[in-house]
Amino acid sequence: MFDYRRTHTCGELTRSHLKQTVTLSGWVHRRRDHGGLIFIDLRDRFGLTQLIFDPAIVPKEMFDQASKLRSEWVISVRGEVIPRAQGMTNPRLTTGEIEIEVKELEILSSAKTPPFSICDEESDVNEELRLKYRYLDIRRGDIAKKLIVRHQAMLSTRNYMSKHGFLEITTPILAKSTPEGARDYLVPARVYPGNFYALPQSPQIFKQLLMVSGIDRYFQIATCFRDEDLRADRQPEFTQIDLEMSFGTPEDLMKLLQGLMAAIFKECIGVEIPKSFPHMHYRDCVENYGTDRPDLRFGMPLVRVDEIAKKSTFSVFTEQLSAGGCVKALCVKGGGEISRKDIDGYTAFVGKFGLNGLAWMKYQDEGLSSSIVKFFTPEQQNELIAKLQAEKGDLILFAAAAEDRVNQALDHLRRKLAKERGLIHPDALNFLWVTDFPLLKWNAEEGRLESEHHPFTSPNFEDIPLLDKEPLKVRALAYDLVLNGYEIGGGSQRIHSSELQEKIFRALKLTQEEIHEKFGFFVEALKYGTPPHLGLAFGLDRIVMVLTKTENIRDVIAFPKTQKASDLMMQCPSGVAPKQLDELKIKAEPVEISWI
Amino acid sequence: MFDYRRTHTCGELTRSHLKQTVTLSGWVHRRRDHGGLIFIDLRDRFGLTQLIFDPAIVPKEMFDQASKLRSEWVISVRGEVIPRAQGMTNPRLTTGEIEIEVKELEILSSAKTPPFSICDEESDVNEELRLKYRYLDIRRGDIAKKLIVRHQAMLSTRNYMSKHGFLEITTPILAKSTPEGARDYLVPARVYPGNFYALPQSPQIFKQLLMVSGIDRYFQIATCFRDEDLRADRQPEFTQIDLEMSFGTPEDLMKLLQGLMAAIFKECIGVEIPKSFPHMHYRDCVENYGTDRPDLRFGMPLVRVDEIAKKSTFSVFTEQLSAGGCVKALCVKGGGEISRKDIDGYTAFVGKFGLNGLAWMKYQDEGLSSSIVKFFTPEQQNELIAKLQAEKGDLILFAAAAEDRVNQALDHLRRKLAKERGLIHPDALNFLWVTDFPLLKWNAEEGRLESEHHPFTSPNFEDIPLLDKEPLKVRALAYDLVLNGYEIGGGSQRIHSSELQEKIFRALKLTQEEIHEKFGFFVEALKYGTPPHLGLAFGLDRIVMVLTKTENIRDVIAFPKTQKASDLMMQCPSGVAPKQLDELKIKAEPVEISWI
Repeated sequence: MFDYRRTHTCGELTRSHLKQTVTLSGWVHRRRDHGGLIFIDLRDRFGLTQLIFDPAIVPKEMFDQASKLRSEWVISVRGEVIPRAQGMTNPRLTTGEIEIEVKELEILSSAKTPPFSICDEESDVNEELRLKYRYLDIRRGDIAKKLIVRHQAMLSTRNYMSKHGFLEITTPILAKSTPEGARDYLVPARVYPGNFYALPQSPQIFKQLLMVSGIDRYFQIATCFRDEDLRADRQPEFTQIDLEMSFGTPEDLMKLLQGLMAAIFKECIGVEIPKSFPHMHYRDCVENYGTDRPDLRFGMPLVRVDEIAKKSTFSVFTEQLSAGGCVKALCVKGGGEISRKDIDGYTAFVGKFGLNGLAWMKYQDEGLSSSIVKFFTPEQQNELIAKLQAEKGDLILFAAAAEDRVNQALDHLRRKLAKERGLIHPDALNFLWVTDFPLLKWNAEEGRLESEHHPFTSPNFEDIPLLDKEPLKVRALAYDLVLNGYEIGGGSQRIHSSELQEKIFRALKLTQEEIHEKFGFFVEALKYGTPPHLGLAFGLDRIVMVLTKTENIRDVIAFPKTQKASDLMMQCPSGVAPKQLDELKIKAEPVEISWI
Repeated sequence: MFDYRRTHTCGELTRSHLKQTVTLSGWVHRRRDHGGLIFIDLRDRFGLTQLIFDPAIVPKEMFDQASKLRSEWVISVRGEVIPRAQGMTNPRLTTGEIEIEVKELEILSSAKTPPFSICDEESDVNEELRLKYRYLDIRRGDIAKKLIVRHQAMLSTRNYMSKHGFLEITTPILAKSTPEGARDYLVPARVYPGNFYALPQSPQIFKQLLMVSGIDRYFQIATCFRDEDLRADRQPEFTQIDLEMSFGTPEDLMKLLQGLMAAIFKECIGVEIPKSFPHMHYRDCVENYGTDRPDLRFGMPLVRVDEIAKKSTFSVFTEQLSAGGCVKALCVKGGGEISRKDIDGYTAFVGKFGLNGLAWMKYQDEGLSSSIVKFFTPEQQNELIAKLQAEKGDLILFAAAAEDRVNQALDHLRRKLAKERGLIHPDALNFLWVTDFPLLKWNAEEGRLESEHHPFTSPNFEDIPLLDKEPLKVRALAYDLVLNGYEIGGGSQRIHSSELQEKIFRALKLTQEEIHEKFGFFVEALKYGTPPHLGLAFGLDRIVMVLTKTENIRDVIAFPKTQKASDLMMQCPSGVAPKQLDELKIKAEPVEISWI
């Protein structure tokens, strides 16, 4: 039997291996017949190596076999490493200076013609087809490269966290349904008919229990589940780098995690990132960027011009201001040449976020110009120019409405403009800690306060006296890590004192029954000696997306699901045998699913 | 606010730290009031440190606070490292030569009295109570130590596999129900009512697809699920070290995995194991030990004595032999003094496995003795002695019945005797590769051949010609790793050739429709260019059990389930809100569960 164990991969041989006899195994990437010779590019995930079958050297039978080879057949060859003929070298390949003069050939398996080209990475294949034949899509190379980065990111995380005394502890997948949060995936329990497990939305409760257990420092790369209608960047199962530590402060944790990010970026893509990340308060983020996850790879902040607008005679502005709204503006550098038609496009764009329109001014040689300039005195115009730090050639865009609406619309517009105008360097990495989130928010519907995150989040200790009088001003000891405008992680200090926990429950007007129903045994567990503890969870998928420069979450998951939470390859979910449902004592009428 | 960030853990301070001012944080392990002083043993997962409150040094208010401290309260203290008084040192503790003269004290949280003692590790607490208060059970230390070993085993595995070119790739948890194998846990799909995901019993299909994808070498520490009625050593969710490689042979894989085991045992418990493990054929295992997972930490093989028994006049033996059964014996070294009563006990024991009785002989100074010796000629007696390598003082136990029954009963008896007679060194580690399993077995009920493992397991290439004529003699390229009598891993070479795969399907008499129904898209995937590949899956829980010397699988899982697949801490599974079932369009009547 032919020994198909390779001596080298297809990405390895160079001139330093000349004259060696080698065994290579892999897939036929391309075959060319040229001048009586057969050339094969042999491929594995490490690279390509050119094989040459010369009828003057190999027996006729083998040459005939070689001429039958087709794309994606799996073969193994033995031969000699020889230099490529002059002018035939390929400087884009590591192996581009050599080829293998084949002496022995074994066909390991033939292949049906794939539904799309494997060897042409660039060709644009419909994503549904790629998902149906995911195993062939991975073979094309691009997804495989991203999976390699994902592997390295996980390994770097584990080694870094372990080096810093964190233990990886696996928590259950068959867990309990919780009344709060997103929708749970349920699992019928056969042994207790009509009862269910739930797949965890996060290991939050388990990791806090591990701190109560004295585990001190925990982490886990954990699969989490949410049965939500999916946005483009969500998956029903996703992966968190989850961690928790005892006896630390947010500053300790941030320092540690900056080191983690540095290790991941260095080890995965060879990039050095700053040792320390800037901080921004939640309210400054919202004020200046309209969002709590500002993309700071470019400038163009939202500038509040209420004071100037108030003095103007432009009724659209003054009316919004009297109604409690605000006026904010963006200064688009060099935007003077943006056409009216394009500005109309932006107006339509912000309309999707509930803005009735965009006002605008261009700063030209003769000063500000537009149909609304006349409502501003020359002095007010100068104030606008100064406030927005506008220069000649710039475009100023104004939004006036309720504050939330202005913020949301201008945040989206700002990012759209940055993309269109090429303001974002493709290699830019901008990390930002967002801190000082509010602890509580007002639920107008139910007429009571509720937690922004969960009721175990610690208030900033300085703000505890405000809890009774001005609870909405109380800041949480919560922090998010934002990277390039994406929230890649979020966490908080948790409450460790029973007295403070009681105080928060009272502020939330929760009765003992409600507390028991919502949080069950967990509140009891916290009473047996809870250390101060804090933690965070990172979205691994999102981090790998940044590392591999893709905006498609499915590119960084080996076997992803569609936005309708289905797997096109396995054709799942699927109907099951009636016996299975009988054993679970549940009844269900299957709808037919049509697959591509 | 008191800064509770510790300068040292509670397991760290020695005489080299004398006179330093330190901050320690942890749990009150024990308090003793002695000679007007208060002594506290402060505990964290790293150790214990003795604190001393001296009323001559600390303010009265602090001393009063110290006298209120109770077990399991969480505190932080600042003080000076001083030597313990002469005669008061504790050589069993790293910190046993010092104590902390406390200057500042902060009570971080108080604690309810725990339902069982935390500080007395030895005390025997009911397991149900320990599971209900798992967070306190972990705090006691023993479970935490095992979780640390588990963490290290996972980390060592990941680094070893990565170093050898394996990529960790996460495969889906929401997968597809398969008609073969054990019972699946199902997850109702909200978007497609009446359709279900299934939690994977293993990533088998995914890892083979990754080889088809050209990923080359894959591994994963994967959670797997089986909805089975649980044996003592099973959990509904369990963890596999799952791996697969392309273009290798079983010898390559075994060598690699011996290195993995060496790394795990060295890095987790500091033990060097042999670089290479012995091999034994399946049929030799069964012949000589009655099982395919023999415990070779001790001898006492099963010895077939058919030839001698046949010549005897002992009708119990001769009748079984004529009926196609066999006679096997165990030689119990030094068993001569085992009493009749104990032998009767063994007879009852083997009765549970369907044996009607045990015959026995003792080899004494005057030769073999027992009520059945008379049926054997002196020559036959000598043959028995020689065959069993019996020495004076030994006991010989005989079983005669159908071969399977004899094997099963004597396997159990052999292990019971070894345990009772202390034949197993507590540190012994015995690894064994079991190879040459049969590929096929006869399903008498359905009157056809079926696969021992799954139909993608490769036959031994030498045996392919036997497929048509003597299919039951075909050996599989399958291998198990056995450690101390437990199967800790199993795997095989997979079929990569479509022609061979068709041949196997034909031998199994599967129609195209059956193939499609059972294996669906997977058989299609294998047609697009499949490399030779092979793999294995280890039971991580079982390996950690051996590493930590426990026979209870729940000891090596942070939050385990009971044998009825329930979680006593979370009280799960549980009923869910009617709205949740409505959204899933399933109907179920919940049974009430009573919790401890």
